[in-house]
Amino acid sequence: MGRFTGEPVSFMNSNITGGFWKQRQDLFRAVTVDALYDRFKETGRFEAMKMNWREGMPYKPHIFWESDVTKWIEGAAYFLQKKRDPELEARVDELVSYMARTQEDNGYLNAYFTVVEPEARFTRRTDHELYCAGHLIEGAIAYAEATGKKAMLEVAVKYADLIDRVFRVEHSAAFDTPGHEEIELALMKLYDYTKEERYRLLAEYFINTRGTSERDETYDFTDQEHMQSHKPVRMQNTAEGHCVRALYLYSGMADLARSTKEEKLGDICRQLFENITERRMYITGGVGSTYRGESFTFDYDLPEYTAYNETCASIALALFCRRMWLMDADSRYADCAERALYNTALSGVSLSGDEFFYENPVSVNPGRNAFNESRPDGLKEHLPILKRVKSFDCSCCPPNLLRMVGSIADYMYSVSGNIIYAHCYMEAETELMLSDGPVRLKQMTAYPYEGDVTIITETEGRYTIAARIPGWCRKYDILVNGCKAEFRLEKGYACVERDWKAGDSLQLKYSMETRLAEANPKVIDACGRAAVMYGPCVLCAEGMDHADRPLKDIRIDRGVQFEKRMEALEGISVPVFYGKAFVRRPFDGLYTEHPAEEEEIPLRLIPYFAWANRGITEMTTWFLVH
Amino acid sequence: MGRFTGEPVSFMNSNITGGFWKQRQDLFRAVTVDALYDRFKETGRFEAMKMNWREGMPYKPHIFWESDVTKWIEGAAYFLQKKRDPELEARVDELVSYMARTQEDNGYLNAYFTVVEPEARFTRRTDHELYCAGHLIEGAIAYAEATGKKAMLEVAVKYADLIDRVFRVEHSAAFDTPGHEEIELALMKLYDYTKEERYRLLAEYFINTRGTSERDETYDFTDQEHMQSHKPVRMQNTAEGHCVRALYLYSGMADLARSTKEEKLGDICRQLFENITERRMYITGGVGSTYRGESFTFDYDLPEYTAYNETCASIALALFCRRMWLMDADSRYADCAERALYNTALSGVSLSGDEFFYENPVSVNPGRNAFNESRPDGLKEHLPILKRVKSFDCSCCPPNLLRMVGSIADYMYSVSGNIIYAHCYMEAETELMLSDGPVRLKQMTAYPYEGDVTIITETEGRYTIAARIPGWCRKYDILVNGCKAEFRLEKGYACVERDWKAGDSLQLKYSMETRLAEANPKVIDACGRAAVMYGPCVLCAEGMDHADRPLKDIRIDRGVQFEKRMEALEGISVPVFYGKAFVRRPFDGLYTEHPAEEEEIPLRLIPYFAWANRGITEMTTWFLVH
Ligand SMILES: [Zn+2]
Ligand SMILES: [Zn+2]
Repeated sequence: MGRFTGEPVSFMNSNITGGFWKQRQDLFRAVTVDALYDRFKETGRFEAMKMNWREGMPYKPHIFWESDVTKWIEGAAYFLQKKRDPELEARVDELVSYMARTQEDNGYLNAYFTVVEPEARFTRRTDHELYCAGHLIEGAIAYAEATGKKAMLEVAVKYADLIDRVFRVEHSAAFDTPGHEEIELALMKLYDYTKEERYRLLAEYFINTRGTSERDETYDFTDQEHMQSHKPVRMQNTAEGHCVRALYLYSGMADLARSTKEEKLGDICRQLFENITERRMYITGGVGSTYRGESFTFDYDLPEYTAYNETCASIALALFCRRMWLMDADSRYADCAERALYNTALSGVSLSGDEFFYENPVSVNPGRNAFNESRPDGLKEHLPILKRVKSFDCSCCPPNLLRMVGSIADYMYSVSGNIIYAHCYMEAETELMLSDGPVRLKQMTAYPYEGDVTIITETEGRYTIAARIPGWCRKYDILVNGCKAEFRLEKGYACVERDWKAGDSLQLKYSMETRLAEANPKVIDACGRAAVMYGPCVLCAEGMDHADRPLKDIRIDRGVQFEKRMEALEGISVPVFYGKAFVRRPFDGLYTEHPAEEEEIPLRLIPYFAWANRGITEMTTWFLVH
Repeated sequence: MGRFTGEPVSFMNSNITGGFWKQRQDLFRAVTVDALYDRFKETGRFEAMKMNWREGMPYKPHIFWESDVTKWIEGAAYFLQKKRDPELEARVDELVSYMARTQEDNGYLNAYFTVVEPEARFTRRTDHELYCAGHLIEGAIAYAEATGKKAMLEVAVKYADLIDRVFRVEHSAAFDTPGHEEIELALMKLYDYTKEERYRLLAEYFINTRGTSERDETYDFTDQEHMQSHKPVRMQNTAEGHCVRALYLYSGMADLARSTKEEKLGDICRQLFENITERRMYITGGVGSTYRGESFTFDYDLPEYTAYNETCASIALALFCRRMWLMDADSRYADCAERALYNTALSGVSLSGDEFFYENPVSVNPGRNAFNESRPDGLKEHLPILKRVKSFDCSCCPPNLLRMVGSIADYMYSVSGNIIYAHCYMEAETELMLSDGPVRLKQMTAYPYEGDVTIITETEGRYTIAARIPGWCRKYDILVNGCKAEFRLEKGYACVERDWKAGDSLQLKYSMETRLAEANPKVIDACGRAAVMYGPCVLCAEGMDHADRPLKDIRIDRGVQFEKRMEALEGISVPVFYGKAFVRRPFDGLYTEHPAEEEEIPLRLIPYFAWANRGITEMTTWFLVH
């Protein structure tokens, strides 16, 4: 396709009908939607929206609580979009009624800055005011699209108009750009939805002003890099600072570049993608090498045990990838999105759907956590937790997962003229619009556990289906109606252009086998080690499956063969991989000059996202390899 | 020997005449003694002793400054003991005159608690008051022994008597035992020197009361474990808390056990030694797995990059070992002392003698330090520095090194009846006292760079020379006058009992070759890796010698052969080891599923203690091994 010619195909165009994501969506609808509602209710997030709080009362509004609520509404809306539900809508409508009631005449709406610090409105860049506004906008659009109800959208638009006037037109706020980015991509979404130019202009204003304003403060404890305002965005070609902020910003920049077709901004987005994926990303698609500032660090710095890898950051990375493939259909973007979605993002939620990780380390050492817990506060270090929990004080990740799972079909397709790009594979029925008119497709697959994908078209016509050949795939066949198909290979997509008949099948046979991956020699934690991958999934070992032998001592042969068996883990069927490995025979004492003999042990690997569902135990993703 | 029958042979009985330690002593006498004096003078440590400070003036006394000064005096005294020097003595005498002038009539002497917080005397356990008193006592004894001048000793005795009265007799202090141990071993030394029973009783009181007093506070940020007062000492069989405090305490406990011949306390000391050396000690003889509390952590927790390994802690470990071999002549104690002395302790000082490390990590990553330095304060982490510095605010280590080098011959011998134990080998002439009378010995060796040791006796008589067979030695010959000697092997000592004639030679031929050592599989940082050792020295690689190829990716074969060459490093001759190793060919990007080919590179190793003498560079001690 030509650059900047991609058009998204929304999850609204697809119905997930089976397979991996159907199971997840059913679980999230049955469990997660309500679990988060209950959790937010009991922690006072809804009560705070009524803005009745006065000093001395419980439920004092927090600067980012509203974003939790509006993200929950957005996620709920994605499920309502597929199936209306009066009870769930009543819950949303009640929350919307609080917004309508508490919004000021000029459009302002923020509980914290109304009841706690009214004098500080639009004066403190660091305090998530515009971030909350961004999530309000996204939630409002989603709810309007799902239900046709416009009350929340009216609130959001009125607030967006105030922000536009205060920031872009009058410059009457005390700062110029958001401390926590998010509103940029939300405004681009609002522009797409309303076609009102001023929202695009406001997004552009925020993006272009970033890193140029002397009025833009940062936290005392950090620096402008933390919030990507150390330089103008077009001079930023390495990913710095807080990962979630960074990736929301880059997503907004990619939206803007596609909208304005600006080569320079598009190039910067690509450089940032390269820097992240070729220098600063864990093999699990996680980003954030340190909890300090929840941030990127430096090239090749990917410590195992202290990886931060916030769930939100991987979700945001997937959002960024999806925007990148609209600018430039290169399969690396979908490879990266899958890496993030199937590993770190999904690791953020338990198989039961109601417990969550904020951080997603790639190895854990329960001995260190136990010691740390025994320490007095003054000697404690920050360590990732070992068991998912039902809620966090900072609860950004759980509703972000709700949004992601609800709208997962967003990652399936894009179009450009008469080309259909099939990016991430899921079982679904889709109707999408090409230059020549609508096309209906049906996709069947057991992805990511099996590599076969069948796409049946129900629409006759000459068009191209450009099917992504996953980066992990070494051997594949592309068949049309059972016969080897002719195709052009373009940046990782097998482009099959033909006169399709209704009922024609495109079969993608991607040979899915376990593979070993190694990191660059500069990644000091992974030298001498390999990760085991299956399709887009990184596999991991848990201590409880290995008689608590030290997992870091497990060595595999390069030629190791695994047997895959589908097994139930907490009631969910996941692939489990059995192979053989070696560990040194245990010995007492600390050092020996007589190398301990190795003994063979059975190795049992599960997908990384499924770790920590059976209690606290050691876990690792990197194995010694000869 | 029977348990508890060992008697120390002081460094005062030996003159170092050549070899490794002669070079160090000459350097320390020429450079370090004066360098520390100058540094302490310019930082106001001497001025503060005059106790003229008033609010608003510079050189406000610090709670541990006096210990720096008295440790420097002690170290200087060890050199004066070998060669008087009026100029150096004048400097000491002036400092002693401040003490005599400022000591109160009742004996009290502490600058901080006199001029800054006089109302807080003997009320704050955490503030190093008794620790300073301990170092005053040690310095005073050393200076009296070296010069015969008693002024400092009189000050120390007067203060010790006050402490005895206040703590042991009247219990009129607000706490019962020192927050930072040290005075226990100092009091045992004062008892040995004066034969005054009350000092032993006071040491015993402090040791026995520890962990039993409700009046003993700790810091807000930590707990009683930090200062080894979480339980009575006879119930402590794992090494916990601040390493230097712990090892000074254990040394005092060992002194007491030997003095009282108490089996229980002796057993506890041995259990603590076992716990340290078989569970919690770096291969370099360093202890302190975390900077948090400068402390021991938990079994097998030995992280490479964040190892604390304070220089003082390894010196204290050697002090403890020397006491252990007096209780029980087992060669493991001298093995451990050598490990600490030749690696972490000596790593604390530059080859030039005037720059110092406080922390001694076993691997460093300059990229991480550079990134960290670029961070705002709120996002910085604690990392070991990469280049030794001339002074520290907390300057305990440099004068401790001065004491250690000045009195290094303390580690050579002990006696028991008519047995001479030769523990650590150094070139020296010694006169020591057996039951049957004095014996003069001459020892010649290039240890630790060569394994041959020749001991010539100048004294006729029937006695036993029990020569330690180093734990690292796999092959050895013991010759008397050139012929294979008969000997009994007892706990790692080759005991040669015979009628010695003057001029007889005992030759110890310890085959010294590079060896590979591996850590227990539970040491997660060292799995799949080996350290390279030569005699008691751990070897390390520096980045600058390997074209800055990533050191953690260096792999050696188990059968690797090294060629040793003596080379000048900053003017000091050290052994350098050349072998071959393998690294993966560099590649761009982060992950690959096509394993990078290995290429052979020349490996250049130097003794660990000599690292960081040629500028900032990567360093490691653990290599991948197949
Ligand atoms: Zn989050
Ligand atoms: Zn120190």
